[in-house]
Amino acid sequence: MDDYIKRLDQIRKWLVKNGLHALIIPSGDPHQSEYVAEYWKAREWLTGFTGSAGVAIVTQDHAHVWTDSRYFLQAETELKDKPFGLMQKSAKTLGYVDWLKQHFGKGNIIGIDGQLVSESQSRKYENGFSDKGIEFLLVDDPFSEIWESRPSFPKTSIFFISEETQDRTRIEKIQFVRNHLTESSADAMIVTDLDEICWVLNIRGSDIQCNTSVVSYLVISSQSVDLFIDREKVPAEIQKIFENEGICLHTYRYIRGFIMAQERETKWLVDPAKCNASLFALLSTENVMEETSLIYLEKAIKTPLEVKAIKRTMLKDGVALTRAFMWLENTLESRSVSEDEFAKMIADFRSKQKGYFSESFPAIVGYQAHGAIVHYRPTKESASLINNSGMLLVDSGGHYESGTTDITRTIALSEPDQKVKAHYTAVLKGHIALASVVFPESTRGVHLDALARQHLWAEGLNYGHGTGHGVGFFSNVHEGPYGISPMIGGERNRPLKAGVLITNEPGFYLEGKYGIRIENMMLTVLHSATEHGKFLAFETLTWFPIDLACVDFRKLTRDEIYWINSYHNQVREQLIPLLSNPVEKFWMIEKTKPIPFGKIG
Amino acid sequence: MDDYIKRLDQIRKWLVKNGLHALIIPSGDPHQSEYVAEYWKAREWLTGFTGSAGVAIVTQDHAHVWTDSRYFLQAETELKDKPFGLMQKSAKTLGYVDWLKQHFGKGNIIGIDGQLVSESQSRKYENGFSDKGIEFLLVDDPFSEIWESRPSFPKTSIFFISEETQDRTRIEKIQFVRNHLTESSADAMIVTDLDEICWVLNIRGSDIQCNTSVVSYLVISSQSVDLFIDREKVPAEIQKIFENEGICLHTYRYIRGFIMAQERETKWLVDPAKCNASLFALLSTENVMEETSLIYLEKAIKTPLEVKAIKRTMLKDGVALTRAFMWLENTLESRSVSEDEFAKMIADFRSKQKGYFSESFPAIVGYQAHGAIVHYRPTKESASLINNSGMLLVDSGGHYESGTTDITRTIALSEPDQKVKAHYTAVLKGHIALASVVFPESTRGVHLDALARQHLWAEGLNYGHGTGHGVGFFSNVHEGPYGISPMIGGERNRPLKAGVLITNEPGFYLEGKYGIRIENMMLTVLHSATEHGKFLAFETLTWFPIDLACVDFRKLTRDEIYWINSYHNQVREQLIPLLSNPVEKFWMIEKTKPIPFGKIG
Repeated sequence: MDDYIKRLDQIRKWLVKNGLHALIIPSGDPHQSEYVAEYWKAREWLTGFTGSAGVAIVTQDHAHVWTDSRYFLQAETELKDKPFGLMQKSAKTLGYVDWLKQHFGKGNIIGIDGQLVSESQSRKYENGFSDKGIEFLLVDDPFSEIWESRPSFPKTSIFFISEETQDRTRIEKIQFVRNHLTESSADAMIVTDLDEICWVLNIRGSDIQCNTSVVSYLVISSQSVDLFIDREKVPAEIQKIFENEGICLHTYRYIRGFIMAQERETKWLVDPAKCNASLFALLSTENVMEETSLIYLEKAIKTPLEVKAIKRTMLKDGVALTRAFMWLENTLESRSVSEDEFAKMIADFRSKQKGYFSESFPAIVGYQAHGAIVHYRPTKESASLINNSGMLLVDSGGHYESGTTDITRTIALSEPDQKVKAHYTAVLKGHIALASVVFPESTRGVHLDALARQHLWAEGLNYGHGTGHGVGFFSNVHEGPYGISPMIGGERNRPLKAGVLITNEPGFYLEGKYGIRIENMMLTVLHSATEHGKFLAFETLTWFPIDLACVDFRKLTRDEIYWINSYHNQVREQLIPLLSNPVEKFWMIEKTKPIPFGKIG
Repeated sequence: MDDYIKRLDQIRKWLVKNGLHALIIPSGDPHQSEYVAEYWKAREWLTGFTGSAGVAIVTQDHAHVWTDSRYFLQAETELKDKPFGLMQKSAKTLGYVDWLKQHFGKGNIIGIDGQLVSESQSRKYENGFSDKGIEFLLVDDPFSEIWESRPSFPKTSIFFISEETQDRTRIEKIQFVRNHLTESSADAMIVTDLDEICWVLNIRGSDIQCNTSVVSYLVISSQSVDLFIDREKVPAEIQKIFENEGICLHTYRYIRGFIMAQERETKWLVDPAKCNASLFALLSTENVMEETSLIYLEKAIKTPLEVKAIKRTMLKDGVALTRAFMWLENTLESRSVSEDEFAKMIADFRSKQKGYFSESFPAIVGYQAHGAIVHYRPTKESASLINNSGMLLVDSGGHYESGTTDITRTIALSEPDQKVKAHYTAVLKGHIALASVVFPESTRGVHLDALARQHLWAEGLNYGHGTGHGVGFFSNVHEGPYGISPMIGGERNRPLKAGVLITNEPGFYLEGKYGIRIENMMLTVLHSATEHGKFLAFETLTWFPIDLACVDFRKLTRDEIYWINSYHNQVREQLIPLLSNPVEKFWMIEKTKPIPFGKIG
């Protein structure tokens, strides 16, 4: 407690010294990453709240943390003995911007570290506050003066992606950007998004947990390519290759100086949704051309070699999960297993597959009531003991050199009752409806979302998260700009295109009891081109049995039974040759037994 | 031809005289009505193109009409011997705004009759043209000087709606608006939308064909209610009642003078999407509060008495249609029937029902290839002769004192082939999916649209129109702000609410062959309220048989067969008591025979 009071006190002194009345402390990094390196977890250090999403506000009289429903429980526990109050984001409570507008007015100044906020978001703050005459200020990192024993700056080595998965060389990708510069009559593009930089340069790293990205900036102009990364992170042989290819290395923090040193007339292409506000502020506005990043859009369309690799990866992942779930079943016969231990075992089984790199996100192993906490992640302290009864939800994924995976299965550890079966069956029917849909090419995720929910809706049920998100290639497990959700005009709602890799993950959560989610990854593919236009469809890529013990067969249509049988048939045919012993093979045969057609209702 | 050349010449002279380089001639009236009185059909008079949607552009060198695919055929025929070129609106051709931007630049002035364009649309023009340095000007009606023997200004008598359908008196509705004025700290609201005026005052009229509205303006302030309508249109007894209720009558064209005479500080509530730009221009901008019209939003939620009345109306409509379709079947046994004649007969049968007022839109009777022209309307010249073979699409509706109807049925006049059946069945399955869906209360039409299309999509098919539109009460057959369509951020895409009356009308159109559409009206109702939130559903209100001769039963699920049988059961039980003779009753029994459950595939 004393530590946290001291930290808060330091921030308040910093506010006074800098003439600010309030400071917004978000969870981001200078690259608007979803996951951030320890070095940037200032909000966590200051408040003690470790959830990945949350904003702290510090004024002389108040200190609060705002977070959403995923983290209410965790935040309540973690903030209990801290000097920060918890503000639960909901329709009923004030958001932090409205709260600030209620507490401050003309003559007040509110600041934020301009590196931790995108230019677009910064404009929204500015507009919001200016209504009330509040001044909004971008400041330099306040924690650089305050945070003692701050974690060191990320400095893992970078490496090249495998040539087997590389359809385009660095040179070709740089040329692709340069062609766009020419078309747009621009001189240079600033790339700040870490996975965009990795994509262009065909590199990866491990600067951030569960990520494959490299903390850096990239500037591509018609003449030069400048990569801002601490040189010690670039192995000598890569330095040499970069040099040959005309890619200049600069120290990471020199990006600001570099931008300032450019000629004033330089015409910049910048994505204001990605570029941080401090960096953006260095550009003279009349020479900035704003647009959604070309790389962001291109990266989401998976290439033939990437697709080939992802398909191989899915088989490895299926084998690893087979072993993990078999291990659980066997172990439960003699003892209980903590959620935490099972999460580790899953990663362990994955790590035995060739080309494995890391988890693609911290696994969610939610036993019974924990399954109903949508973003639950077991820790040593929180973990329940799994035993031979009830429901278990497991959402996990891996980064492999040959692609990134994300899969959720929910299994019954004892005979489920009718209520569980009704919920599970409604979720499964929605999953199948989305997996089977054919749609014209202008269709967006928002149009398809109801297909996955309709059977839950019919029973007065629903789930509070989106139905699908894009997945990167050996890259971010959550990737824009495509998604499937009811959000209108959201960031991730573009018309779907062939080549988009996306998840299908309807669910249902009964608070205090259990959670159900069935998630496969799907590739968007061309289905047909007729005189009525082009039609797309989804090809399911994930191969692992769905637990039929939880399904009420009488509620399935003939088409749904056909889908399940055909899916399980493919799971079996593809995975059995990769399994090493008869016990594994027998397990797989058991789990993929066809549903008799006589069983429809 | 000579007439049209002369008219064009007059407009060009008018342009020169007024210093304009181009004139935009839209299809509207000063109230942004969908259908307009003859008095405002200047574009039609000038160009000879009679379609309801289209824009003419006149410059010294060019004269063009832009219209959309619904009207290509008609426009081509009508413009053949006229001095106007046809510009077919499509993804490939320039819209008229882009065309004007391509042909004009700095120093040029483009005008439009400021009464025929909403303030919102006018701003869009202004922004669009200012990019190119073009000046955009609101002008007074150019046709007042040019149009000889212009149709007279609409002057039908107004009347009160039946008390049976009136949940709120005029006084109560005016108070409802005044409460909103108080809440908004506004002094007065300008109501320009004709059906909004009718709704507030519980009046109707017949100023416009197929409409029930009254050409007028209304201003409601905390002290007064001012209705701008030519006094001769208001019967003496209504004048007296208005006088007692404090509703002042003014001549229609005095609205401008009235607005200008108000104190400068008057705070106005105005909906810029509705108010015409000329009227809006009279208000001092600092005193205007813009918002979506409160009346527009309130009117769409049907009241208990309205719902009761609509349900009665649907039975009358079903009886009228029964007689019309029986008449067609009988007549076809001895002779062919023109589309035009059948359209008149339908209106005729409707007119025999008590409380009938008029058609709610010009009926679409599309035989064979004509059925594939989505907004086809038979005229004496265009009408085909219907005989005992092929497919017939009939989309018609009536205004009754007790509500407005809109229904489409497609019937086979001979045994349909497998292709027709496949198309018809896919449309019907979509209709049923939408009719049966349950959804949480934040759901918008855009979320549900795919349910109606999914079975067509599965076969690489689609339709080019929306799936559903709101319907007014004894009022506009197309009513906002609710709808079901794939449009993102469209005007008619609010979260659905209980009380919203909406159509369900998927279709399929095979060019040159036939059109299929199945349309019922539905009421949005509360389905359930659980701990997971409020859920809504649709209650189908239209009662008339769906032609099962066109259905491939093997493609139906058990639930779909159940829906059809249960629908036809209700059609039969409700209509038979209202039919007068055994032949009619027998016909109805035949048309609503249940599908045996053994027939599912």
